[in-house]
Order: sequence, then C-alpha cells, then structure tokens
Amino acid sequence: MKNTAVLLITCPDRKGIVAAVAEFLYKHDANILHADQHQDAEGKLFFMRVEWDLSGFALDLAEFSRRFSPLADRFEMRWRLEDSRNPLRVALFVSKYDHCLMDLLYRHKTGELLCEIPVIVANHPDAQKWGDFYGVPFHVIPVPAGDKEAAERKQLDLLAAEKIDLVVMARYMQILSREFVARYPQRVINVHHSFLPAFMGARPYHRAFERGVKLIGATSHYATEDLDEGPIIEQDVVRISHRDGLEDLLEKGRDLEKVVLSRAVRWHLDHRILVYNHKSVIFD
Amino acid sequence: MKNTAVLLITCPDRKGIVAAVAEFLYKHDANILHADQHQDAEGKLFFMRVEWDLSGFALDLAEFSRRFSPLADRFEMRWRLEDSRNPLRVALFVSKYDHCLMDLLYRHKTGELLCEIPVIVANHPDAQKWGDFYGVPFHVIPVPAGDKEAAERKQLDLLAAEKIDLVVMARYMQILSREFVARYPQRVINVHHSFLPAFMGARPYHRAFERGVKLIGATSHYATEDLDEGPIIEQDVVRISHRDGLEDLLEKGRDLEKVVLSRAVRWHLDHRILVYNHKSVIFD
Amino acid sequence: MKNTAVLLITCPDRKGIVAAVAEFLYKHDANILHADQHQDAEGKLFFMRVEWDLSGFALDLAEFSRRFSPLADRFEMRWRLEDSRNPLRVALFVSKYDHCLMDLLYRHKTGELLCEIPVIVANHPDAQKWGDFYGVPFHVIPVPAGDKEAAERKQLDLLAAEKIDLVVMARYMQILSREFVARYPQRVINVHHSFLPAFMGARPYHRAFERGVKLIGATSHYATEDLDEGPIIEQDVVRISHRDGLEDLLEKGRDLEKVVLSRAVRWHLDHRILVYNHKSVIFD
Amino acid sequence: MKNTAVLLITCPDRKGIVAAVAEFLYKHDANILHADQHQDAEGKLFFMRVEWDLSGFALDLAEFSRRFSPLADRFEMRWRLEDSRNPLRVALFVSKYDHCLMDLLYRHKTGELLCEIPVIVANHPDAQKWGDFYGVPFHVIPVPAGDKEAAERKQLDLLAAEKIDLVVMARYMQILSREFVARYPQRVINVHHSFLPAFMGARPYHRAFERGVKLIGATSHYATEDLDEGPIIEQDVVRISHRDGLEDLLEKGRDLEKVVLSRAVRWHLDHRILVYNHKSVIFD
Repeated sequence: MKNTAVLLITCPDRKGIVAAVAEFLYKHDANILHADQHQDAEGKLFFMRVEWDLSGFALDLAEFSRRFSPLADRFEMRWRLEDSRNPLRVALFVSKYDHCLMDLLYRHKTGELLCEIPVIVANHPDAQKWGDFYGVPFHVIPVPAGDKEAAERKQLDLLAAEKIDLVVMARYMQILSREFVARYPQRVINVHHSFLPAFMGARPYHRAFERGVKLIGATSHYATEDLDEGPIIEQDVVRISHRDGLEDLLEKGRDLEKVVLSRAVRWHLDHRILVYNHKSVIFD
Repeated sequence: MKNTAVLLITCPDRKGIVAAVAEFLYKHDANILHADQHQDAEGKLFFMRVEWDLSGFALDLAEFSRRFSPLADRFEMRWRLEDSRNPLRVALFVSKYDHCLMDLLYRHKTGELLCEIPVIVANHPDAQKWGDFYGVPFHVIPVPAGDKEAAERKQLDLLAAEKIDLVVMARYMQILSREFVARYPQRVINVHHSFLPAFMGARPYHRAFERGVKLIGATSHYATEDLDEGPIIEQDVVRISHRDGLEDLLEKGRDLEKVVLSRAVRWHLDHRILVYNHKSVIFD
Repeated sequence: MKNTAVLLITCPDRKGIVAAVAEFLYKHDANILHADQHQDAEGKLFFMRVEWDLSGFALDLAEFSRRFSPLADRFEMRWRLEDSRNPLRVALFVSKYDHCLMDLLYRHKTGELLCEIPVIVANHPDAQKWGDFYGVPFHVIPVPAGDKEAAERKQLDLLAAEKIDLVVMARYMQILSREFVARYPQRVINVHHSFLPAFMGARPYHRAFERGVKLIGATSHYATEDLDEGPIIEQDVVRISHRDGLEDLLEKGRDLEKVVLSRAVRWHLDHRILVYNHKSVIFD
Repeated sequence: MKNTAVLLITCPDRKGIVAAVAEFLYKHDANILHADQHQDAEGKLFFMRVEWDLSGFALDLAEFSRRFSPLADRFEMRWRLEDSRNPLRVALFVSKYDHCLMDLLYRHKTGELLCEIPVIVANHPDAQKWGDFYGVPFHVIPVPAGDKEAAERKQLDLLAAEKIDLVVMARYMQILSREFVARYPQRVINVHHSFLPAFMGARPYHRAFERGVKLIGATSHYATEDLDEGPIIEQDVVRISHRDGLEDLLEKGRDLEKVVLSRAVRWHLDHRILVYNHKSVIFD
C-alpha cells in the first residue's frame, strides 16, 4: 500500500503559487515524490498536482485543511487532498459483455489498480462467475424497460451502503439517468466503443463498418448528463482494413476497450485527473 | 518506369472467376507479379486486382478488351485495364498552406510517386516558389467570393488541356462544386484534417481542441458532392495531451496530413483502390 | 465451427500456378472464401493460401492428396491441406506469470481462438486456478535445475498422449532443449518480451530500462534451437518515457505480450503462416 | 521570437529544492510559463526545467549567475541558464540522401524550429540545391578515404568560425571521430535508421529485411564516441509485412527518420533535454 498524500489545485494563474505551495510543504517536512503542473494560457488558469511521502511529514492530515486554507484563500484555489492510505472504493457495473470486467478484476488482483472493489452491479447474471472467482459480491439488479428508476434507486442504495467513491461502467449497456450521474459528478467512468466524437450513441462499430473507416477507436470518459459528451480521459485506435468484417471490428475493439478503460480507472485512482471546461488534464 | 499491366475487376461472387481469369492470362503468357482479391460476403461481391509483366505477354493491350470481353460478360464484370507505361497525369491544387504540396513534389522527384505532374493550380500565389523549384507550371486562378463558377471553368479547361487523370487537393481550401466533382468521379483526392467522421466541415483542429480529444487525425478520401462524405482511402492519428495548444495541433497535424495524403495518391497511382458502397478496397 | 479447408503452397515461381490450382478447385466445385498469394521476387518463390467452403465441395478430403499430387509434382510444390473441422490441439506452457495464460484461455472461451486446449503444462503450481476456472487439466511438471531432460521427457509423453499439434509458451520461463523443439518444428510459439533482435536473452526489460529506449516491444516467434532467433510472427511496441520505472515497463509490457502472443496463436490456428528463410509470410 | 529564459537543474534529490528555486524566481518577479521536474528514485537525483517570461523579470540575466550561485551551491546543483532571445546556431551535415535536410529546412522556414542555420556541410555536392533554395551557405568538404582527419579539421574550423552550438547529422554518412564528438558533447544529434539497439552499425534496413522483423524503426540520439551508443532522444516505428521489399523499407524508413530527427532537434532547441547515465530526460 502506498503511504502518500496527493494535493490537487486549480486556481487563477499568477506569480508565486508554486513558491507558496512548495514552501508550505517544505515547512512541514514533506518529501515530494512527484510534482506536475499545467498552465492554460488562454483561460489564465493554473493546475497542480503534488504527491509526497507521508513518512516524516510533520503535519497530521486532519490538520491539513485548517493550515492550508489561508494559502488556498489567498490564491483563490479550488483544491482537494487525497490520502493514498485510504484507497478508493470502486463499483463495477456490467451487463453481458464481460471482457472489461475480467480485465479490471485481473489488474486489480495483480496490483495495477490500487483500490477496493466491494461490489459488482449487473443487470444480467451472465458475469456472475467472475464475481465468484475473485470473491467480489455480485448483485444482479435487473433494469426492466420502462422502470429504470426503481433499478437505479436500488443501485444508489447499494453504492451508498458500500460507500462507493467511483463507478466504472465496464461495458454496462444501460444509460444512467441525469439524476444518477449528478450524484457522482466526475466519479462515473464510462467506455464508449468509438473514437469520440465520431459515432456517438448506439452501435458505433456497425456505423464505423458502414462508413468504411480505416481505424476504429475507443474512448473512456466521465459520464455526464449528455450521453458521450463527458470529458474525455483516454482514447486509442487500431487499424482495420476492408478485410475486417463487423465481427472482426468487435473483436479488435474489445482489446481497445480494455486498455482505454483500465488506463482511465488507474489515472483516476492515482488522482491524476483534473477536469475543467469539459476537458481533462492528465498529470504525469 | 514500370512495364506492367493491371486488371481490376468487380463482379458478383461465384465459382470459377479466379480460374477463368488466371487461365486467360496464362494462355497469353502473362507473368503475374501481384494478385490480390477480396470477397464481400454480405454483398456477395468479388473484387480482384492482377498485375503482370508486359515483357513476354503475348497479347497486344489494344486487343485485350476484345479478347477479354466474353469472359467479362459471362461473369458480369465491371473491369478496367491500366497500362503502367502510361503514368497518370496529376494536377495538384493548393492554396496557401504548402506542406502537402512540397511533400508530394518531393516524393515525385524521388520516384515514390510514379506519375506526371504537368500543372499546379492555386488560388493564391504563395506557393509559386515550389513550382519554380521543381519546374512545374504554376497557374494562379483566383476564386473570388461569389464567383467560383468562372474560376472552376478555367480550372476545368486547364485540366482538359493537360489531359489530367487525377486531381489532388493538397490542402486546397476551396470546396469544389458538385459539377466539378462529377466530372472527375473517384479522380479527386482530398485530405481532411480530422479523423472522419469526427469534425466534418470547417476548422476541425479548433473543434478537436475544444472537445479535448486525446488523439487528432487526418483522412484522405475521394471527393464527392457531399463534403467530407466520400469514400475514405486512408486515416492516421497522433497522440496529443492537455499540454498541446491549438498551434501544436496544427503542427502535429501537418505531419499527419502529409503521410495520409501521399499514401492515398500513391495507391491511386498504382491502381490499388476499388470503391464500392462508398467504401474503398485497398489491394496489397 | 468452421467447415472449410485450407491449402497452403510453396513452390518455385513460374507461370500457370494460379490457373492450375484455381482450375483444380473449380473442377471440384470449391466455393473459394479467401485466397492470398505472395511472390518473393529475389528468391523466385511463390506462396499461396486458399480457403474454401466444404459444403458443396465435390472431392472427399481423403481423396485430395491423390488427385492433387500430379499438379503438385508438376510445379514442385511443397503443400499441405488443413481441415478446419479438426481444430488443432494446443498445449499451453506456463510458469508463474499468468497474464498470457489467462488471456489465451479467455480468448478461447469467447471463440476468438478456434482450437482445443486439452492441457496446461506448468513448472510451478501458481496458475492452477486458471485450469480449474476454465476446466482445463493442469499438469505441474517441475523442472529441477540440472534435470531438465527428465522433465522434458514427461512433457513430451504428455503431448504425445494428448495428440498436441501446437505448443504455446505463455511466458514459460524455461528454455526448451534442441531435442524438444526439433520434435515440434514450427509448432512451438514463444513470446519474447522485447522488440527482437534488440535485447535477446535474459531480462530484456531491465536492459531496455538501462539503455534508455523510448519504446518497448514484444515479439512472438516460432521457437527454434537458437534462442530468440526463430522466425518472427508478430511484434508490437508501446511508448515509454523517463518517468517509467522498471515496474512500469513490466506492466506496460504485459499488455504487449498478451496481444502479440494471441495474434500469433490465432494466425497459426487459422493456418495463415508460412515460414521460409527464417521469415514468416502472414496471409490475409 | 521568444522572450523567455530556461533554467535546467540536476542535483541530488532532497527536500526544499523546489521551494528554494520557486522562491528565488518569485522574488525576482518571474512569470513562470512552464515547469517540469523529475525524480530518479534509484539514483536519488532531481531534475528540473523552468521557463519564465523575461518581460517583467527583475533580474538582469548577466546578474543571474552571481545571485543564483549560493542557492545552487547549497543544493550541489549542476545547472545552466538558456536565453531564448539568443537562438542556437545549427550546422546541418548531409551526404547524398537529402530527405532529412529538406525536412529540417522546411520546418525551420515555417517556424517549427527556432534557431539559426548559418551553414550546411556536405561531403557530396548533391544537396546544393537546397542550400540555394533556402539561402543557406552550402560547404562541400569531401572526406577522402583515409584522410578524414583533414576534412574534420576543415569542418571544425568552419563550425568555430560560425559559432555553431549544435551539429545535426541529417543522414550524414560518415562516422565522426572521437575527437570531433568530444568537442561537441551532447551537441551532435544523429539519426540512426533502426530501432536501437537493434541493428546497430551498417546497413540496418538490409539486416531488418533479412531478419524478417514486422516493424522497422528509427532512432535519434546524441552522438558519442561509441557509435550508435549515445543517449537516445526519440524513437519511432512503422509496420511492415512480408510484402515489403527492401526498397519499401527504405521508403517507409525515410518518413520515420524525418520525424524522429526533427523532434530531437526541436527538443534540443527548446532546451528540453537533460542527459544522465547515458539516458535522456525529455521535459514536457
């Protein structure tokens, strides 16, 4: 387990921010492990991520907020502090396609994804075996046509009970309602099986096939109330040719979806993503 | 210079086509250099490209049509024969951005593009120096707002006078009229600076920047009357990040546009492209 | 299950081969589904792969050899016929790293890999759970230092008993002896965790890290008696930077190894690979 | 032209470095535009690059060293300051292949490469036309077999006279002597036409072709006394297949070489590269 803290900052860009933050951390004996920053010249905004070792850090994290607030106020910062000793609690949502689910569970097992996965939520029972294999409780909550509301109420109750921090839609084939998404702002990650904004909406591989594109893609993004319009986290593509039938696109796409989704989840877990203007900053 | 012939065939898929074509060529002593075929299972269509050495070929190409017609009729073929000893005559259209123009001229000079380039057509004089450097006549035909028709008439006259086979829009920033395109069906190649069908139309890099995509692309395609909807020939992408400003996208995009356009031109010159259903088959 | 036959041919390149083969197949009512060929101009060699539908094919495959032999002799062909109704029997070899094993088993389950997998052979018990999960017998055959010979004898007995056609070294960390490999020529596929021929031999990621390369790779190849020198089937790379520590290379490499190995296995199963001069032809 | 300063720092990693540097710059009213840092955990080293706007900066750069030295001494820094108002002076070395030369000159013209190019040095006259076209003095210095020394003396005299900061070997086909390279440490950039360390030395495309690799690469690196062993700056690859003959590899390679070399030159000009342990840090 990691023993670090991560500070994420967004504020108007002006002189002295780095000096003030670095001085603050130095004063409390922080051993900085990673620091990255970004300036948006157009919007005159400043973004920063600092990660430091907690062994030897002289300030109790419970005290951090009180001590850091004056500085934060001075620079009009929006900021948050993440404690890596409390890994995020993640719920995996799945339907019938199980490739992303099994991929995420495997990466979790091998230590690539530092988090807890207390629950899998499914609207079909097909992927139950993965819950059993990895010892993760598997909840089947059917979503009957016309009564999504009741299903979402059950889902939200479950998420609340399990104190879930992040929902990952691992090819979950239902559209979450505005209300659901609003409850987890920038905390629902979805993977769309196209190179967004191309082929938004339904059946992207079919439409890619019909259009005759030479590359297909996949996109992971934060879900927002506008379907497939959320801030993009990661994208990748693979080459296809006229020889590839629809079935080949689906197969090649599966490999894309797995890597594109797992990278997004990982960066989120590592607190490396800041969103502004519907766009994402991915800190190194 | 190459000394080969290329036969391109599209027909309903049924048994015996390859046997018949191969037998026909063998009977006339063709030394086959490349052969590639494709079946569209859904559309029950068959596509074939055969290239053979003309040295030793026992049939005069002027005779080919007469001799091959009975076979072609039997299989309901649409077909054409290309004689590589008559390289295509290409007109390059350009506006102010000259990176694709200079790239194509360089590739032509080094022998990558086997064709003749008797004319550059420009609506601005900026790229004149490249015409001078490579010794290619450079015609400035301004396209005044509201009088594209007169300009296109001059362009078409020039193309006719120069017996042009292929028009390459090397970042030519004007939209050709339906009438123009209809005169050169599948003989106008354009490069669009996005990963189509994402960001069709104007200012794709600006829109990609605003949307926060993680890859930008370029697409070469045959121009059709519907802008950016023509059959795609080639696409490629390059990774960008939040650090890349609009200017960086433009720069990275230039490298993409060059390779994506030059591959399309090359495959066209080598008679390796067949179009059907608004999609392209690119033969190996 | 597929119901097709695949004919693979290597012979000196001369006129009339395609005509003769196509005519032969047409005569027996073959409905050709895929055909691809390659000429090696330098070596004056011809390579061909034809796949046809067996429904409606008028010749019993048991008869094929007798009927085809005169033609094959005339063109000095080396050839073989594969019957897709008899899927290959594959043994997966594994040590402790299980990512390639679990990936191949998953692809097999989802129908991407058309084969039978009657046995997993391991020199460590760690991956037993995957055998259990997928219901594949898992044989632990330890390989004590200094007594590889006895272990290989057991392995070979098992392979013979199970009528194995293909051995896949799914990150099996032992070097197979010359004698073993000679028993399965071009039927042992290995994945090496570097972009061969860079970093042949031991600890390629460590050496890549020390050298400061900007891309790491993985290579699948047929095992031969010379370690890492066998014919390359597939390679791929992923970008790394100075920020990536050795652990990151290992993680990124795992994703590469999975795709590079699974593609090779798939192409082998589909009889799409021909080897000559220590190089591979991968038919489309 | 840019109006910025760049500070590059290497030192043992310990607490307070960032705070001290940021405080120093803030005290002198620096408006920081970019800052990036890197920690090498294994070697316990710290690397930093800061770029700030010189308009409004309160310290004369001539004074910088005196004022910064105490801080630098305290942290045992190796450091240097670059003033972007004095763009580097670059000499391009070329032989017969001119694709990298013409590419660099074009990028210079369009403003991608911020530098001065006062001289092209060639051992053959073939590329003279590019010097003429871009108005860059073109010096032919033949390198007779057995008398490289005299030629290098002339080259070095020319570089000294032109106050050259960076030598770019744009497919210059001669090996520079140890003495030459020692005079321009980390200031000679070469492009090798393989994915190093694969195919070091002569004729890499030929050897890649013979080995049957599925990707070919190119590598830009600082030249050192050990040929092709210098710190790698950038690498890239492109896919090939059995269909690609040697000539195709050469062509595809040219496009690789251009981008790989031009990126390295650009990062050097922007003072974004730090070398340690024979490896490069490329700052964002």
